[in-house]
Amino acid sequence: FGLQASPRDTSKIWELMDSYQGSDKLALQQSIVHHVEYTLARTRFDFSKFHSYQALSHSVRDRLIEAFNDTNLHFHQMDAKRIYYLSLEFLIGRCLQNALVNLDLEDDYREALLELGYKLEELYDEEVDPALGNGGLGRLAACFLDSLATLNYPSFGYGIRYTYGIFKQLIKDGYQVESPDFWLNQGNPWEIERLDVQYQIRFYGFVKKVWDHGVERSVWEGGETIMARAYDTPIPGYNTQNTIALRLWKSHPASEFDFSSFNTGDYFKALEQRQKAEYITSVLYPNDSTDAGKELRLKQQYLLVSASMQDIVRRFKRRKVLDWNAFPSKVAVQLNDTHPALAIVELLRILIDIEQLDNMSAWQIVTKSFNYTNHTVLPEALEKWGVPLIEKLLPRHLEIIYLINFLFLEKVQQKYPNNWGKLSALSIVEEEGTKKVRMANLSIVGSKFVNGVAKIHTELLKTTIFKEFFEMHPNKFQNKTNGVTPRRWVRCANPALAALYDRVLGSDKWVQDMELLKQLEPNVSDPQFVRDFQMIKMENKERFVHWIRKTCQVDLNIDSLFDIQVKRIHEYKRQLMNILYVIYRYLVIKESSPEERKRIVPRSVCFGGKAAPGYVNAKRVIKLINSVADVINNDHQIGDLLKVVFMPNYNVSNAQIIIPAAELSQHISTAGTEASGTSNMKFIMNGCLILGTLDGANVEIDEAVGRENIFIFGTQVEDVDNMKEKMRNTDPHEYFPQELLKVFQEIDNGRFGHNQELKWIIDSIRHKNDNYLVGQDFKDYIKAQQQVDDLYRQPNEWAKKSIYNAIRSFKFSSDRTIQEYAEEIWQLKPIKVPEPAAQMHER
Amino acid sequence: FGLQASPRDTSKIWELMDSYQGSDKLALQQSIVHHVEYTLARTRFDFSKFHSYQALSHSVRDRLIEAFNDTNLHFHQMDAKRIYYLSLEFLIGRCLQNALVNLDLEDDYREALLELGYKLEELYDEEVDPALGNGGLGRLAACFLDSLATLNYPSFGYGIRYTYGIFKQLIKDGYQVESPDFWLNQGNPWEIERLDVQYQIRFYGFVKKVWDHGVERSVWEGGETIMARAYDTPIPGYNTQNTIALRLWKSHPASEFDFSSFNTGDYFKALEQRQKAEYITSVLYPNDSTDAGKELRLKQQYLLVSASMQDIVRRFKRRKVLDWNAFPSKVAVQLNDTHPALAIVELLRILIDIEQLDNMSAWQIVTKSFNYTNHTVLPEALEKWGVPLIEKLLPRHLEIIYLINFLFLEKVQQKYPNNWGKLSALSIVEEEGTKKVRMANLSIVGSKFVNGVAKIHTELLKTTIFKEFFEMHPNKFQNKTNGVTPRRWVRCANPALAALYDRVLGSDKWVQDMELLKQLEPNVSDPQFVRDFQMIKMENKERFVHWIRKTCQVDLNIDSLFDIQVKRIHEYKRQLMNILYVIYRYLVIKESSPEERKRIVPRSVCFGGKAAPGYVNAKRVIKLINSVADVINNDHQIGDLLKVVFMPNYNVSNAQIIIPAAELSQHISTAGTEASGTSNMKFIMNGCLILGTLDGANVEIDEAVGRENIFIFGTQVEDVDNMKEKMRNTDPHEYFPQELLKVFQEIDNGRFGHNQELKWIIDSIRHKNDNYLVGQDFKDYIKAQQQVDDLYRQPNEWAKKSIYNAIRSFKFSSDRTIQEYAEEIWQLKPIKVPEPAAQMHER
Repeated sequence: FGLQASPRDTSKIWELMDSYQGSDKLALQQSIVHHVEYTLARTRFDFSKFHSYQALSHSVRDRLIEAFNDTNLHFHQMDAKRIYYLSLEFLIGRCLQNALVNLDLEDDYREALLELGYKLEELYDEEVDPALGNGGLGRLAACFLDSLATLNYPSFGYGIRYTYGIFKQLIKDGYQVESPDFWLNQGNPWEIERLDVQYQIRFYGFVKKVWDHGVERSVWEGGETIMARAYDTPIPGYNTQNTIALRLWKSHPASEFDFSSFNTGDYFKALEQRQKAEYITSVLYPNDSTDAGKELRLKQQYLLVSASMQDIVRRFKRRKVLDWNAFPSKVAVQLNDTHPALAIVELLRILIDIEQLDNMSAWQIVTKSFNYTNHTVLPEALEKWGVPLIEKLLPRHLEIIYLINFLFLEKVQQKYPNNWGKLSALSIVEEEGTKKVRMANLSIVGSKFVNGVAKIHTELLKTTIFKEFFEMHPNKFQNKTNGVTPRRWVRCANPALAALYDRVLGSDKWVQDMELLKQLEPNVSDPQFVRDFQMIKMENKERFVHWIRKTCQVDLNIDSLFDIQVKRIHEYKRQLMNILYVIYRYLVIKESSPEERKRIVPRSVCFGGKAAPGYVNAKRVIKLINSVADVINNDHQIGDLLKVVFMPNYNVSNAQIIIPAAELSQHISTAGTEASGTSNMKFIMNGCLILGTLDGANVEIDEAVGRENIFIFGTQVEDVDNMKEKMRNTDPHEYFPQELLKVFQEIDNGRFGHNQELKWIIDSIRHKNDNYLVGQDFKDYIKAQQQVDDLYRQPNEWAKKSIYNAIRSFKFSSDRTIQEYAEEIWQLKPIKVPEPAAQMHER
Repeated sequence: FGLQASPRDTSKIWELMDSYQGSDKLALQQSIVHHVEYTLARTRFDFSKFHSYQALSHSVRDRLIEAFNDTNLHFHQMDAKRIYYLSLEFLIGRCLQNALVNLDLEDDYREALLELGYKLEELYDEEVDPALGNGGLGRLAACFLDSLATLNYPSFGYGIRYTYGIFKQLIKDGYQVESPDFWLNQGNPWEIERLDVQYQIRFYGFVKKVWDHGVERSVWEGGETIMARAYDTPIPGYNTQNTIALRLWKSHPASEFDFSSFNTGDYFKALEQRQKAEYITSVLYPNDSTDAGKELRLKQQYLLVSASMQDIVRRFKRRKVLDWNAFPSKVAVQLNDTHPALAIVELLRILIDIEQLDNMSAWQIVTKSFNYTNHTVLPEALEKWGVPLIEKLLPRHLEIIYLINFLFLEKVQQKYPNNWGKLSALSIVEEEGTKKVRMANLSIVGSKFVNGVAKIHTELLKTTIFKEFFEMHPNKFQNKTNGVTPRRWVRCANPALAALYDRVLGSDKWVQDMELLKQLEPNVSDPQFVRDFQMIKMENKERFVHWIRKTCQVDLNIDSLFDIQVKRIHEYKRQLMNILYVIYRYLVIKESSPEERKRIVPRSVCFGGKAAPGYVNAKRVIKLINSVADVINNDHQIGDLLKVVFMPNYNVSNAQIIIPAAELSQHISTAGTEASGTSNMKFIMNGCLILGTLDGANVEIDEAVGRENIFIFGTQVEDVDNMKEKMRNTDPHEYFPQELLKVFQEIDNGRFGHNQELKWIIDSIRHKNDNYLVGQDFKDYIKAQQQVDDLYRQPNEWAKKSIYNAIRSFKFSSDRTIQEYAEEIWQLKPIKVPEPAAQMHER
């Protein structure tokens, strides 16, 4: 399987291929119309806006493919070292605008379409958001791909093409309702189905030992085999010919008939068995819930890593001379969290069992090729798989895991003789209860470098959960603070701000080199520049108001402070603290005199985010937010002074509307819980102030923008344990501040409805179980909110600080992150694909 | 849902569309290469023959789409009456060559490809055979579509896009092994996915009665809904711009979320439920086995008819004025057997419940629009569905069936007062045991015309199973003898013979008008013409020998008589008689002296055909054939005098190799069992003699070619019942001829292996249970075989008789059949789509 070399002279074909599609108006129109006729097979009497979107997308896809093919060919010819980014999630968002912007064809297409009777921006809205991720981890992977392409790094993303991505969140009577999102129902013009790129994946079966020239070899046989087929989404870089692949795998039944597994001729049973193969890649499982069918999730992980490693090995073997020792100089694999950690074991299996390398050579190659990014410090969030399940599903892999562990523990024993504590902490296999494989330990042992995703997070890794590993291999640990791509999050999401930058800086170079924004520091004292910025924010707020009216049937006061918290709903992220504060604010307004009310800053507090389907407490918080919104928004005494909105189905394309409109954004996790966060970066890039704790990337944002341009509050990480201790040992009536107790009381009294669940939410913290320190931080939070109000009364000051946030955000470009990875972890050099010569543009 | 009228002026788009792709060599090459680059996204270093096939197919598809769009537009503008052919099966065979031949582009593409380094015929072999049918019924539907397109009749085929078509038949140790055939694994360039043509299909639920302006209306609600999506395969006519659609439906989950069916928030359960929607169209069930999941099969039938009738109604409603009485003048529906009979009920439901017509008007419309083709006279093969299942799955349809039955039985009662025998025979509902709905009765009652598929078959319908219906409505019954398309079965399958015809007749007009072959009658006395014919047969035999060597590892003697029986394995088709005769022949040879052997005509007896997975007796016959083949082919005493081959996985593309090579073909069903048969027609068209019984279309072939040009034997239909009676009342040792008893003995003795199953096969007929009269006909069969041998010793006589078969086969063109349907059943006029003006060919 896999790609085949051509058996014949195809020079005539390549000669005919040696030209590019034009980009003048007529060429673009012809190309769109070509797809209407030939790809969609439409006739005059049935043609809709959706068809236009499809035809347009296919036209853009053609241009992506030209660059994509050029890139693949060039990397192949240059024998490039490539970085392979393995991730169970990629939240890439809509592709059309991003492609047009990166190809620099947005204006040309806009004009070409206008003559055909279509508005480009209306067609953007026809695109379905491919929802192949749960949250930040998946979106990070997508930002990284954009930076890898833009920075000309030879690279591949590998993931899974879930038939159902993350659920569509609907709100019914204030509750979250999960609706399956069959995102492929409308087709997907952005993927290229690779009928011939497919690999066999085995599950179950047994390991046979055979003797071969005096060497014992393992042969994994029997069980079931299915196929993983590749679907490529071309990822274009900005202002470069380089276009890399996001290769997603889909499971499907094998065509070959396996006589050995043929069971007494029951054809229909056999068919059913086959069909099940399609289930494997069908559902994206939540990363923070135990709902998932465990075995199916492990199958997904193995399918991803097996197909990807087979693909990587095949590509490596296409080199002229086969030299396995060169592998690490041609291949770097990055594991995005531990979900693809079995890749380490799978590569070992391929090298030892298939390529017949000896164990130690194989181990050398593997440990020079892999790297692992950790995304959590919460010990309960570290992934573990029961040994019995692995033994059943992947018997050979379990053997190899034991082998790795044996080799590693021998070294531990050498370094710390008979230190059972060390051995038990470092072992890949957890021996308590049902034996488990610790995927983080496996990842660390099998990797060259391990990194956290923000300074504070990496420090915590070294001192807490991976302390023993850090002591043993201090040089293995690095920090790579996350970043986000300015292409999608400024250039696409905030075209007005981008245009301002272009105009003032004299070019769009900042899109590729965010440090150029430094040059705007003096402009902050230019009143015209500040007014321009304010105008842009106003436009973005208008767009947002319009969208909120359409999706939530709520009218927001455009002059109110737009205060936004969007992210997965999780106790540690403390949406609860936010909504409790909203209640407090509501009560204050209710008690205010008309005179006092005049001084109150109007607020629109907007929440967005999904709760994992099985995460009861998170879902209750959504109910509370909606119950509170119901009361406040319908309270005529309050009017425009306070509005609360829960925006359903937060996703990448909504984020592109929400974030540019935000004036204040909240990132208020308990210190030491959020690894980094990336939406905080997107918000500041769009000129928004942060109200946050010193957690995750907030710490570095604080440094970058300056304490005078951020609202920081709350317990710091070094005090968290003490404060929890205090919480557990203090009478709740003393521990919780009066302001919060009053809020509890109002909820208890039924002010927001007599729903039992509302009390249960409060119960989740008020009985000495406030593990995320809402009560501890609440007073400080109120104070910070006061500062927010005070500043908002000075619009120019607010604007200036917002601008500082935007122009000092350059460190948080994923370009910076990727450059660090490339230099310090992957040892990877950019390779720029040559631009097609001008005369070639004439087809 | 469904197609949408364009909301904007798209004149600029249509102006850009107003041209056609060129067909000069460079244009074809450019088009192929365009698809290599943009559709397949291939680069130079990975490009295979399969990719070339794909690119070529996409290039041809573009040209099909041009004609297809023109056709749809023209029919729409002409407000054409259309015939809708509903069939659960369409065995269309490979598309590439057929499209090239019908578009008259085969030579141009061959030349264009040769310069690119590819041989067209090699690429033909890359195509997967879409196996969406079980046998003759499905292939008939495909031949009809070809004729409908060629004869310019406005028409649609409606069927199901099974993910798994009929199983792939493998032979393992002589046994049939069924392997799932995932034919879509390689993609399908011939279909156009219609993302926006989809209809909601409901299952289960309940019927609510509501009062609306004094009228009781039924509302079917609840249950499950899924979507059926259209996939169009363009079917080009020969030498015409007309290109019609085979529209196949695929089930998939609905995008909309149904709050009412939302069950307590178990998201993963909900997902599973959704995924099940995809199962519905996933498996083609055998029509002659009880293996199928009954309920799933009924779901398939309903999905086909519901989606198709919704589609037909939508198209009808797009006319300028909505006049339901005009429906029968714009719509004719042909039911291919009873499998789509629920269409009658579904249209009633739509007219009554949705369009709010009164019952009687709706019934008038329906009974003027539908027609039904019967395909069997075996009463046990008539389709019935239990009332409880229909009530559960389609509650509203059961009500309507009762309504139809009530109205109909009232008429019966008027005509035959108190004749309970009549009432019980004619009733749509069978009352004995579990109540059942008789789909044939429903089809007859709901149709304007009912037809059999051969003269003898139609006569049997009138006198046996539908006797009472015929007496009541004699004018309802017609005969329409089946036919086969000469495009695929001569022009594509036998290009040498086609070239001979072209040359002698001076043009290819015969391909569209087979009666022109009459003009060749005088040529039969031209020795050169006969020699040409013999040469062509030899070439086809060589191609066949080559293919047999590759697929069966058997070397055939090219000078032996190629004696072929290919069709589904079934007791009534009597493959058993054929193989028993082969054994007899083998024994005769074994006992012959060397002198006698010299006079023996060498034979190669080739069997092909699938047995339904659950049909034990049929599968045993396959085992017997292979056991016998094993012994005979390896018996050195026999050498080339006799060979037996079982050709695995008989399908359309194999048939195109097998049939042109045949010299004798056997169609030996017990008289009165085969409705028509169509492979007999294909064989004679390719200049082959038939050894057959007076059954099905053999009767008319006998008339057409003349008794001197066919080998007829066996019990005639009017004697069958008597002979069965005799068989049951005679001692087997008297009933069976000595020749056959000897054969039984040899099998019992283990001459073909000591496999118990071999005896069981014999047991299936030898204990007064020879229901298909193998014993009765055996002596006559031997005699006929003797005549075959005698004739074969005179090669020129054989050739002449073969030629008469070929040139007198014109009646069996499906063009003749379709023309009769159009004139006598559908009242349909051809509408020729204008050819594009010459100057338009310049794109």
